[in-house]
Amino acid sequence: MRIDIITAVPELLESPLNHSIVKRARDKGLVEVVVHNLRDYSEDKHRRVDDYSFGFGAGMVLQIEPIDRAITALKRERNYDEVIYTSPDGEPFTQKMANNYSLAENLIILCGHYKGVDHRVREHLITREITIGDYVLTGGELPAAIMTDAIVRLLPGAIGDEMSALSDSFQDNLLAPPVYTRPVEYKGWKVPDILLSGHQAKIEAWEHEQALERTRMLRPHLLDEWD
Amino acid sequence: MRIDIITAVPELLESPLNHSIVKRARDKGLVEVVVHNLRDYSEDKHRRVDDYSFGFGAGMVLQIEPIDRAITALKRERNYDEVIYTSPDGEPFTQKMANNYSLAENLIILCGHYKGVDHRVREHLITREITIGDYVLTGGELPAAIMTDAIVRLLPGAIGDEMSALSDSFQDNLLAPPVYTRPVEYKGWKVPDILLSGHQAKIEAWEHEQALERTRMLRPHLLDEWD
Repeated sequence: MRIDIITAVPELLESPLNHSIVKRARDKGLVEVVVHNLRDYSEDKHRRVDDYSFGFGAGMVLQIEPIDRAITALKRERNYDEVIYTSPDGEPFTQKMANNYSLAENLIILCGHYKGVDHRVREHLITREITIGDYVLTGGELPAAIMTDAIVRLLPGAIGDEMSALSDSFQDNLLAPPVYTRPVEYKGWKVPDILLSGHQAKIEAWEHEQALERTRMLRPHLLDEWD
Repeated sequence: MRIDIITAVPELLESPLNHSIVKRARDKGLVEVVVHNLRDYSEDKHRRVDDYSFGFGAGMVLQIEPIDRAITALKRERNYDEVIYTSPDGEPFTQKMANNYSLAENLIILCGHYKGVDHRVREHLITREITIGDYVLTGGELPAAIMTDAIVRLLPGAIGDEMSALSDSFQDNLLAPPVYTRPVEYKGWKVPDILLSGHQAKIEAWEHEQALERTRMLRPHLLDEWD
C-alpha cells in the first residue's frame, strides 16, 4: 500500500510518521508513506502556494495550480483509489472507513491549511472529503497523520503481540471491556476478582458482558449497526 | 494557560507541538505546553510502564503506579481544571469543548497507548474521558496534539491575519462558505462572478447563503443547535 500526503507544512508530519506503529510498518515494507511539499510544485519564485481569498473574509487560501500539478504528477505514476481532502465539513472518518482503506492500493491525502483550498480543487480534483471530527484545526496535517495511523495499524503484520486489532473498540461494534494489570491492589483499589480466577470461560463471559454494558451506556448507536 | 501531556511515547509529539500555530503561541508566551515522559515516573530499573493485562485478551496495559506518580507530582505544583484521558470510548471532542478549554488555566492530558490504561486510573485519577472520533489509533498522542491545536489556536493572539478563527466552521454553528483565490480562471473553471463584483453587501449575503446551504446539506444538526 502507498499513501501520498500533499501539504504546505511537511514539518508537522515528521514525528507522527516516523515513530511507533507507522514507522514499524514502513520499515517492514507494509506501507510506503510519501510526504510532498506543496511548495515544490509552485512556479512562484518565492515558492508561494497561497493567496488572499476573494470577497471580504479574512484569510489565505491554498491555490489550485500547485495542487493540480502535484496531483497530476502523482496520477501519472500510478492509479489512485481515492484523492482525499481533509476538511471540517467533510464526511466523518470512521473505523469502517479505516477498514476499507486498509485494503486500498494507493491513496492521496491533500491537507488543507489556512482558510482551506480554492473551492475549485474540491469540485474538480478531489474524490472524497473527510473530517476526523467536528472541530477546527490549524491544518489538515494532523488529520492526515490520524487517518494514516488508523489505516496502517490494520495492515497485516503492522502491530505485534502487545496489542491486537481484533479486540479493539469498534471492530465488532462493541467498545473494549475495561483492562487491568499489576499490581492487584493499589491504594485499596482492586482488580476485579473474576480476572484473577484463572477460569477462562468465566473471564471471557465477563469481558463480553462488560463490553456490551459499556457500549449500551457510552455508544448505544453502535448496537444498532449490528448486521 | 498551561497544558501538561503525559505519554509513554513523547517522540510522537515533537513535530506537532513545535511548528505552526502551537509553536508560535508557545513562543509568544500564550501557552506553556509541557510533555512528560511517563517512563520518568517508573521505579522499574528498565523504566517499564506497562504490563500484561489480566484475563485472556492479548495486549499490554499502562500501569497505574507511574501514572499516579506523574499526576500527583503535577497537582502538587498547581490546580488543574481537568485531567483528561484520551480514549476511543470517551465523550466526543467538539468545537464547544475547545472553546471552553481555551478559557482554562491548567489542563492535564494523559495519553493512552497499547491496549489503554489500567481501568483504576480511569475510575480514580481522571476527571474526563474524551475521544476525537469513532476510530482506533495506536495511542492518545495524536489526539492530545489535536486537542492542543484546537484549543491553542483560540487563544487571543495565537493566529494572525492569514486566518481568523471567527469565520471558521462551527464557530457560529455554520460551516464556512466556499473560498476562492487567484487565478480567476483555471482550465475553464471560474471563480463565481459575485466574488469579483467588489460589492461588499452582496458578497457577504452570498457568503452567508452559501454557508447556510452547505450546513443544511452537510451538517443539518448544527442548525438545530442555534440558541
